Amino acid sequence: MPGSKSTAELYAEYKIKLQKIADVRNALAVLGWDQETYLPEKGAGFRGQQITTLSTIAHELFTAPELDTVLQALKGQSSLDAVAQKNILLSTEDFEKNKKYPPAFVAEMSKVTNESYHAWIKARKANDYDLFAPALSKMIALKKQETDLLGYEHHPYNALLNEYEKGANTAMLDTIFEEVKTALSPLLTQIEQQPAIHKDFLHKHYERNTQWQFGISLLENMGYDMQAGRQDISEHPFTTSFNPHDVRVTTRIDENDFGNMTWSCIHEGGHALYEQGLPTEQYGLPCGEATSLGIHESQSRLWENNVGRSLIFWQYHYPRLQQLFPENLGNVTLETFYRAINKVQPSLIRTEADELTYHFHIMIRYEIEKGLIDGSIPVKDLKHTWNEYYRRYLHVTVPDDVQGVLQDIHWSHGSFGYFPTYSLGSFYAAQFFTAAQHQVPGLDNSIATGNYQPLLDWLRTNIHPFGRFYTSNELCKKVTGKPLAFGDFLAYAQKKYSGIYQF
Amino acid sequence: MPGSKSTAELYAEYKIKLQKIADVRNALAVLGWDQETYLPEKGAGFRGQQITTLSTIAHELFTAPELDTVLQALKGQSSLDAVAQKNILLSTEDFEKNKKYPPAFVAEMSKVTNESYHAWIKARKANDYDLFAPALSKMIALKKQETDLLGYEHHPYNALLNEYEKGANTAMLDTIFEEVKTALSPLLTQIEQQPAIHKDFLHKHYERNTQWQFGISLLENMGYDMQAGRQDISEHPFTTSFNPHDVRVTTRIDENDFGNMTWSCIHEGGHALYEQGLPTEQYGLPCGEATSLGIHESQSRLWENNVGRSLIFWQYHYPRLQQLFPENLGNVTLETFYRAINKVQPSLIRTEADELTYHFHIMIRYEIEKGLIDGSIPVKDLKHTWNEYYRRYLHVTVPDDVQGVLQDIHWSHGSFGYFPTYSLGSFYAAQFFTAAQHQVPGLDNSIATGNYQPLLDWLRTNIHPFGRFYTSNELCKKVTGKPLAFGDFLAYAQKKYSGIYQF
Repeated sequence: MPGSKSTAELYAEYKIKLQKIADVRNALAVLGWDQETYLPEKGAGFRGQQITTLSTIAHELFTAPELDTVLQALKGQSSLDAVAQKNILLSTEDFEKNKKYPPAFVAEMSKVTNESYHAWIKARKANDYDLFAPALSKMIALKKQETDLLGYEHHPYNALLNEYEKGANTAMLDTIFEEVKTALSPLLTQIEQQPAIHKDFLHKHYERNTQWQFGISLLENMGYDMQAGRQDISEHPFTTSFNPHDVRVTTRIDENDFGNMTWSCIHEGGHALYEQGLPTEQYGLPCGEATSLGIHESQSRLWENNVGRSLIFWQYHYPRLQQLFPENLGNVTLETFYRAINKVQPSLIRTEADELTYHFHIMIRYEIEKGLIDGSIPVKDLKHTWNEYYRRYLHVTVPDDVQGVLQDIHWSHGSFGYFPTYSLGSFYAAQFFTAAQHQVPGLDNSIATGNYQPLLDWLRTNIHPFGRFYTSNELCKKVTGKPLAFGDFLAYAQKKYSGIYQF
Repeated sequence: MPGSKSTAELYAEYKIKLQKIADVRNALAVLGWDQETYLPEKGAGFRGQQITTLSTIAHELFTAPELDTVLQALKGQSSLDAVAQKNILLSTEDFEKNKKYPPAFVAEMSKVTNESYHAWIKARKANDYDLFAPALSKMIALKKQETDLLGYEHHPYNALLNEYEKGANTAMLDTIFEEVKTALSPLLTQIEQQPAIHKDFLHKHYERNTQWQFGISLLENMGYDMQAGRQDISEHPFTTSFNPHDVRVTTRIDENDFGNMTWSCIHEGGHALYEQGLPTEQYGLPCGEATSLGIHESQSRLWENNVGRSLIFWQYHYPRLQQLFPENLGNVTLETFYRAINKVQPSLIRTEADELTYHFHIMIRYEIEKGLIDGSIPVKDLKHTWNEYYRRYLHVTVPDDVQGVLQDIHWSHGSFGYFPTYSLGSFYAAQFFTAAQHQVPGLDNSIATGNYQPLLDWLRTNIHPFGRFYTSNELCKKVTGKPLAFGDFLAYAQKKYSGIYQF
């Protein structure tokens, strides 16, 4: 009986229950990692079944009445410290939300996710959206059902957004993407009036193993702990964490595109540094989890763009890169290289987009997701709508489905509401990095000498150790003194690109 | 209420419950595979905790009263087909046995197993048995507790033996190992009187990648389905199955020992062929599981020794091997190679032992395990006893712990009673292979031309598809017409070695 137990005993019980759930979820993450790295072809069917079973078990544990009893008994217990109180508050919220999902729905979602993931793989191989559409229809029907289960205000899409970014909604995002359009479009026009930048040398032959070694060395340089993680190859790069001591990244290598692997490594490395920096003593508890996808993405973007596409970053790394690929880069100056890797050019593939047009890719996905969820865009029209939006916003013609509507893994995973966090991440990153530059003396100088310790220390002090103790908004205000705004990103972009394009 | 359900409905319920347990166990197997192939160093702690949690969940599911209710309702239901009836019978036995393990014991065993595995790794690195002894003591105390929980007749070790080989006991094994001694010792003496065989060329430098490719090609040749499995590197080679469509093998490569990887590949390949040949429609049910470790081992040994160390096998593969390693083998004849790979020589390391002295290695472990479990050999004396037995039975001096008592992973995993199944496997293999040679016309000829399909077909007809439907004894009688006997192995050994050593 909870009534007869001390608060400390109850909290210990709560911790055991939450960590048991975390263990099951982390086992699921291992199955997922294996599925995208090493699973033999024929193993997919039973693996899907195994993932469904563990998902169901995790869900059962997180909706068990015994957990509810412990949470109720601990709610508002002022003898707990602030972190413990926050854990109880957030777990209670999570529990209430989880209870909204019937077990049958969870099992069905897991099954459909598996089906649609494999349909997407198949459709990509055949370069044929029609092979994906039936599975996607099922998925969207389930996501609509999910918005009803969760409840929402104003727009059903808000229910899904909140899964990734607590507090985000269509009103806020409509405003932000309007700002993106009004502020970035003129900047793009200015850039388009300048002479084009050539970057052919980035598409010469870059040998696979040398690229791999270079990527590993970048991860190590950033401070990614290789004894608490590893890198492997997968179709679509991702970061996954089984606990802060086992945080894995994946990448892909294109021998005819130098940038593909390099910034994927730095990007996933940024995610991984966040996960490796979460407090191990909070394993399985809310304050041991990343606070939001937007903040997660701010960590990957900060490293990928603010650091990894800066002139000072390459001042240090470029001479070594020239030694590794003398035939491709021996006669290319640092300045030329720097301009090439930052070339702005409307294009087809989101993951290969430059820092500016990238946000138009996201805006398109955001508009489409809203439409798929509220029914204004039927699944059968998706490909057409996609191609039309790319024509309208990025002035490009989509030649086939792999370079169009089939390019992202997200919808096959049922991740609707996820894309906007990519843009939010960039804007958070700019605001955080600006703050770090003010707060850390000599930050740029240390980056210019390949020393990222001061930056990592700042992140490990200001961002990583709190988990969900602060929401993204709270964290942003605490660290930068103000809520998220578009200003720092715009200032960063104007300064960077006026330098590169000399206007 | 089971009373109101049809037998078919109840059986469907039973299947769902069993397959859920199988899913959790197979997830555990994935975590185990990852632990021994790709886990980063610092990830071991939390991984141990995750394995403990899933083990506990699997145990809870297999001791749930709801399962008992369904099993009771289905017991002796004659409307079920023979396979279904056998599944119910075996699941009921499993359930009764599982109930004997309290959840706390299961969790403790999982924790201690993880600790002792990592202690063994550490002790091997330091070449120091004393670093393993404390964890081993804990493990043995738990194993003794386990014999009490399970119950036994005559000797506590029998309880553990039965976990791996139903029906085996110390009386039977004492007899068999006596036969090994009386029949194999004279054969060994005869061999020792012949001129020594030289095999230095097997220890020249065999380049890693070429070995790897050769191993993969052997696996493919044997009929191992690479789309339903894969090979990776681990400290100690093993086979693990997540379902018949995902059966993985591992190997290790020693660039100064040609045989190390080659026969590990063939051996694990034999195990894997059995697992890939189990009926998928019986997934998670007893008739979808291997019948015993002895039979499992018969499959690996049959391929490794009866096939993989035969002259006809190398008639086909040797010319290619010579092409891969011309500097090492270009001037070595097939006959010389064949004699070298079958050289009989008492030695230190079990996994590198020849087919004859191998059984003395097993006998030593068998005697030691009996002694550790009945307390006649204290853990602190284990190293001394080990070294003494090696002196007595194999006439070799153990120079250090890695080449002695720390060489096997088994005890660190808590696998006591496992070793004897290796010898049983060899004896089953000889009896099965002799039967196959009688039953399949032209079997030797097909092997001599690198065509293993007739052999695999025979195994896929006579051994693989039954799972636990037959016990090892029943299967042996069904396939060979008689119970397991030492005779076929002895005849095989006498014929083979009198040829090689020309007496």
